[in-house]
Amino acid sequence: MTRSPVVLGLDFGGTKIAVAVCDLSGRRLGVTTVESLAEAGAGAALARGLTAAHDLLAEVAPDGRLAAVGAATLGIPYDDRVELAPTFPGWGELPFGQLVRDAFPGVPVQLATDVKAAAAAELRWGALVDCDPGIYLNLGTGLAVAIVAGGTVISGAHGASGEIGYSLRAAADVWIDSTERTILEEVVSGQALEATGSGRLGLKVTAAEVFALAETKPEAAVLTAGFNRELAMHVVNLAIAIDPVRIVVGGGLAGSWDRIAPELRRALDAAVPFPPELTVARFPSDAPLVGALALGVQGRRRRPRRGGLRMIINSSSERQRR
Amino acid sequence: MTRSPVVLGLDFGGTKIAVAVCDLSGRRLGVTTVESLAEAGAGAALARGLTAAHDLLAEVAPDGRLAAVGAATLGIPYDDRVELAPTFPGWGELPFGQLVRDAFPGVPVQLATDVKAAAAAELRWGALVDCDPGIYLNLGTGLAVAIVAGGTVISGAHGASGEIGYSLRAAADVWIDSTERTILEEVVSGQALEATGSGRLGLKVTAAEVFALAETKPEAAVLTAGFNRELAMHVVNLAIAIDPVRIVVGGGLAGSWDRIAPELRRALDAAVPFPPELTVARFPSDAPLVGALALGVQGRRRRPRRGGLRMIINSSSERQRR
Repeated sequence: MTRSPVVLGLDFGGTKIAVAVCDLSGRRLGVTTVESLAEAGAGAALARGLTAAHDLLAEVAPDGRLAAVGAATLGIPYDDRVELAPTFPGWGELPFGQLVRDAFPGVPVQLATDVKAAAAAELRWGALVDCDPGIYLNLGTGLAVAIVAGGTVISGAHGASGEIGYSLRAAADVWIDSTERTILEEVVSGQALEATGSGRLGLKVTAAEVFALAETKPEAAVLTAGFNRELAMHVVNLAIAIDPVRIVVGGGLAGSWDRIAPELRRALDAAVPFPPELTVARFPSDAPLVGALALGVQGRRRRPRRGGLRMIINSSSERQRR
Repeated sequence: MTRSPVVLGLDFGGTKIAVAVCDLSGRRLGVTTVESLAEAGAGAALARGLTAAHDLLAEVAPDGRLAAVGAATLGIPYDDRVELAPTFPGWGELPFGQLVRDAFPGVPVQLATDVKAAAAAELRWGALVDCDPGIYLNLGTGLAVAIVAGGTVISGAHGASGEIGYSLRAAADVWIDSTERTILEEVVSGQALEATGSGRLGLKVTAAEVFALAETKPEAAVLTAGFNRELAMHVVNLAIAIDPVRIVVGGGLAGSWDRIAPELRRALDAAVPFPPELTVARFPSDAPLVGALALGVQGRRRRPRRGGLRMIINSSSERQRR
């Protein structure tokens, strides 16, 4: 219980929605999770998350003033839509920022993509502190990175920097439309490994299980070797382009870190002029939620700097003025 | 002639050394060029550049006080060496920063790689003004980019960001040492196209001539198509990773822009979620020299910000303190 101002963080994923409340120093007062139930519709999922947030606030901070909200989501959030979220039917059409703001009238709301929020969490409190530049690599259901430089997360001209899931896999794919080629994420991601693993092994397996089975089953080892090889190619080329101090890995597949890290390490050492450090994230499983809290705390405190978090946040009040 | 303070800029390339003097507003007072004559030795080349600089200063600013020096070079310059400059024998072993500073006692000296200096020039006075983020793509003898974000050029942990010439060309190259695989620059660069072009066409041609011959000779067209395809793959993947406002192209091959730009444009439009603008640089041929002047002007004015130009400059006085 607290009577002090509090910050609410939300992380909307395709499988679950995580909610947390913290004080202004970042100390967590409570956390809860609800299922996304994507099949029940995007609007219902968002409403379920917002209800869980109100319930959590009533429970852990009934007398606390809500000072700020940070909301992370799959895709790139705007006030009136979410871009690049094709895996969650209907999510792209939701007026995401508008609905979150409507749920907390008068409270400043900061929006971010889940991976950029995760990078912000690692930059502020985790494994990317003082890394300039640094790379956050998200190995989750999907594949994306966030690039950190000058003490902030690079947003990109459209908030889309780091969306390497769309990358070309080979020179043969140049000039072929994204809809007609296999993009990187369709081969290198938790979802992809789960699908090909289940198909090839003839039983329903998760991506983590494919990595575990690779120890004993040659069919699984072939899949994970191919996964690691293609992942390594893109991580190496990014490391060459950015020259990061460190690459920090989070997301669901960070649980298979022992089976990915040695291969990535070896690839970086073989190819990058100045090989970066490579570590697992400090918040491998809930970095986007921690990041949403960080953005909330930060958004409350001051106007974000130009080229800084303002760009990754898509502050809904600023969006509205456009 | 001027009695006001002046800034000296030097750009050391493998073929020529360019020298310019400007006033504190960036207005150019004089410029000169001498050949590098790499075969005569790295030390002699550096000395020739420094002599040309003293001569130019004596000519255009005999009474002017030298306020600052900016020096750009191939490779990554430090006080005691130059990294990643294998194409110029002996250049890597030169105590580059030390020698430049010794030539101008008491004057602040800023060092930068040529491509990062070029990007700084475009960011300050050219086609990258207000681009956040932006990419400068150098198509010259070699291949490199510079990434601009938050109003500055990203340096990298070792000053090596943007050195995409070392990139892996395919997943098959993962885990193979750089010395045992063909790196990207050995296929996609002015030097590479000149070598393969001269070999395949049976006559000594420049890269620009290969592009010109592609209009009429199928053998040349095959080479430039392959060049454009592989270049496009890496530019597309960088554009996806960075989400730049604009990609700006400079370097010697910018002269063949009409034969490169349409293919790059088409590749970006087909594959990048939010395709960036694509333009030729404002200073396609002498951006590193302009950048050296910009760094000099800037280095004189103020202490560079943390994470800012200090990082790309390798200020020789700071280096010495290490």
